[in-house]
Amino acid sequence: MSRYFNNELSKISPYVPGEQPSGRKFIKLNTNESPFPPSPRAIERAAEAAKNLQLYPALDGGELRYKIAKTVGVSAENIVVTNGSDEALNFIFKAFCSENSPAAFADITYGFYSVFANISAVPYEIIPLTSEFFINPEDYIDINKNIFIANPNAPTGLTISLSDIERIAESNPNNIVVIDEAYVDFGGESAVPLIRKHQNLIIVQTFSKSRSLAGARVGFAVADKEIIDDLYRIIYSTNPYNLSRTNMSAALGALEDPDYTRCNCETVIANREHTTRELQRLGFNVIPSSANFVFASSPQIGGKDLYEKLKQTGILIRHFDKPRISDFVRITIGSREDMDALIGAIKLIINNME
Amino acid sequence: MSRYFNNELSKISPYVPGEQPSGRKFIKLNTNESPFPPSPRAIERAAEAAKNLQLYPALDGGELRYKIAKTVGVSAENIVVTNGSDEALNFIFKAFCSENSPAAFADITYGFYSVFANISAVPYEIIPLTSEFFINPEDYIDINKNIFIANPNAPTGLTISLSDIERIAESNPNNIVVIDEAYVDFGGESAVPLIRKHQNLIIVQTFSKSRSLAGARVGFAVADKEIIDDLYRIIYSTNPYNLSRTNMSAALGALEDPDYTRCNCETVIANREHTTRELQRLGFNVIPSSANFVFASSPQIGGKDLYEKLKQTGILIRHFDKPRISDFVRITIGSREDMDALIGAIKLIINNME
Repeated sequence: MSRYFNNELSKISPYVPGEQPSGRKFIKLNTNESPFPPSPRAIERAAEAAKNLQLYPALDGGELRYKIAKTVGVSAENIVVTNGSDEALNFIFKAFCSENSPAAFADITYGFYSVFANISAVPYEIIPLTSEFFINPEDYIDINKNIFIANPNAPTGLTISLSDIERIAESNPNNIVVIDEAYVDFGGESAVPLIRKHQNLIIVQTFSKSRSLAGARVGFAVADKEIIDDLYRIIYSTNPYNLSRTNMSAALGALEDPDYTRCNCETVIANREHTTRELQRLGFNVIPSSANFVFASSPQIGGKDLYEKLKQTGILIRHFDKPRISDFVRITIGSREDMDALIGAIKLIINNME
Repeated sequence: MSRYFNNELSKISPYVPGEQPSGRKFIKLNTNESPFPPSPRAIERAAEAAKNLQLYPALDGGELRYKIAKTVGVSAENIVVTNGSDEALNFIFKAFCSENSPAAFADITYGFYSVFANISAVPYEIIPLTSEFFINPEDYIDINKNIFIANPNAPTGLTISLSDIERIAESNPNNIVVIDEAYVDFGGESAVPLIRKHQNLIIVQTFSKSRSLAGARVGFAVADKEIIDDLYRIIYSTNPYNLSRTNMSAALGALEDPDYTRCNCETVIANREHTTRELQRLGFNVIPSSANFVFASSPQIGGKDLYEKLKQTGILIRHFDKPRISDFVRITIGSREDMDALIGAIKLIINNME
């Protein structure tokens, strides 16, 4: 740390992303990327946009903002487009939380929430999931805190119902309630229609997963117009041109090809059910997932051990060395071929232990 | 403003970018974009990268970080790659300034410095330029503040010498000194070689101007390794995947075609000298510019008036309604054809007044 670094920030512990290996070719089941390339329309749009990169991009998400609004069934004024959904989440912490307006989220959830809270000096309450890793809605009723819920949750893949979300939003009228729907297209139910009734509700989504655009960094939030205006206030105070021309064009192309996205999601869901059955056959406890990953533990091999042994065979999965979940691994659902390679490798590892 | 908005932020006044018109086709001389498309290599690289957008981008700028380092003559550990140079500047304010470590910059300079200071709650001193719009280095000696200097300065185009920068850096050893070189390739002299001697010096550059990539949002900072590590600490606490695959690839392509950049810069410089002479012939006071714009005032027509009349003819330039410079307009240097259209339009406007 340099001696110039802001003292108050010296205690932050940055987020640790999943490994992005270079060199050796791995089967990458560790960062919940799509096994499918982007829609041809997205690729074409991005390539076309590259020809005009000498010009600044449109402000406020341009055409993309309108297209997203139409796709999710709201007005453009209800949409803010961001450089990945991480930017949306970071700006939500910055805009609506503070020392006097703390946050609350689960003990087992997206690891970035606590990092965002720390960088904005926001105090937060950690609310434990149940022993089965479910959110207990009662824990969030009337708590007078800004609530962040991933639905489906990561890394468990478990969901919370829209009626529970409504109760939570209603009972915390002086705070915002953020539903992070990064994985919603793989079996969750979106809370977007609820924003009309609940002005403190913010829904965050991403193009990274179901739309095969993790590399394009496009996310968005859906909320009441006043909330959105506040988020644009932050954007215009940090980086008004937050999305490049190629990023926005790729996202636009993906939205123009909804069948492609739907079809890919169906394949991922089918592969997830297949993988779940195969893992169960090998004795694994597999949490029922509504996302593009499964969270599973084996009575025969610890999570860290399995992660390391699979890495040696050329397969990357994710292990979190944290209380309550260190026995588990999170496995991204890839192609059928990749999943069969994974199952084969796990069989060998377990057989060699016996 | 929603009732959830952080009280402390409610006083910020966001940055106002130059108009980005849609609909009517303007000759756009208002946001210092390049009149030339990106290098064919940049376009090709971005199009190629679009095919793999399902995968997250490389962290830490990937290959681009190494290529930038090689281009500017430092090690990769001295480079942080950012989503436009605005992100670099914002993170520098966040990382190294605070309530107890204030900032200082000129009264007439890039308008975003005060916005960045405000969003990070950093107090700042405004140091007036001389009556001729020069920086007086003596004003920055031994002031014990974090100093931000645009060199060449915007919107004036005037420069400060490297020896003055060294004196300023030396005399403020407990603070950082940031040299914002967005326009350096049009006639300035880069302070990058000075980072070896001065560990508190940070140089910020962008791909938006000389490299025709405003739409790709790529910038970078050059500094001592410890400073760079601190900036990555901020990135890993806000948005580790801050650059998309296409953005990084476009930038890489631009660096692989240095002749194209050099040749375009030479053309812009020639067009700037031509425009300067023509404006002087029309009685304008033109500040001698080392950037891809000129800052000029006419004894015959006010800045706002000229801006509005040119807009009516389909030419966009920039006017800042601020003390000391409201008589002036900032004109981006475009193609020779655009500049001749501008001069022709100004002639007509002035003739119609007589």
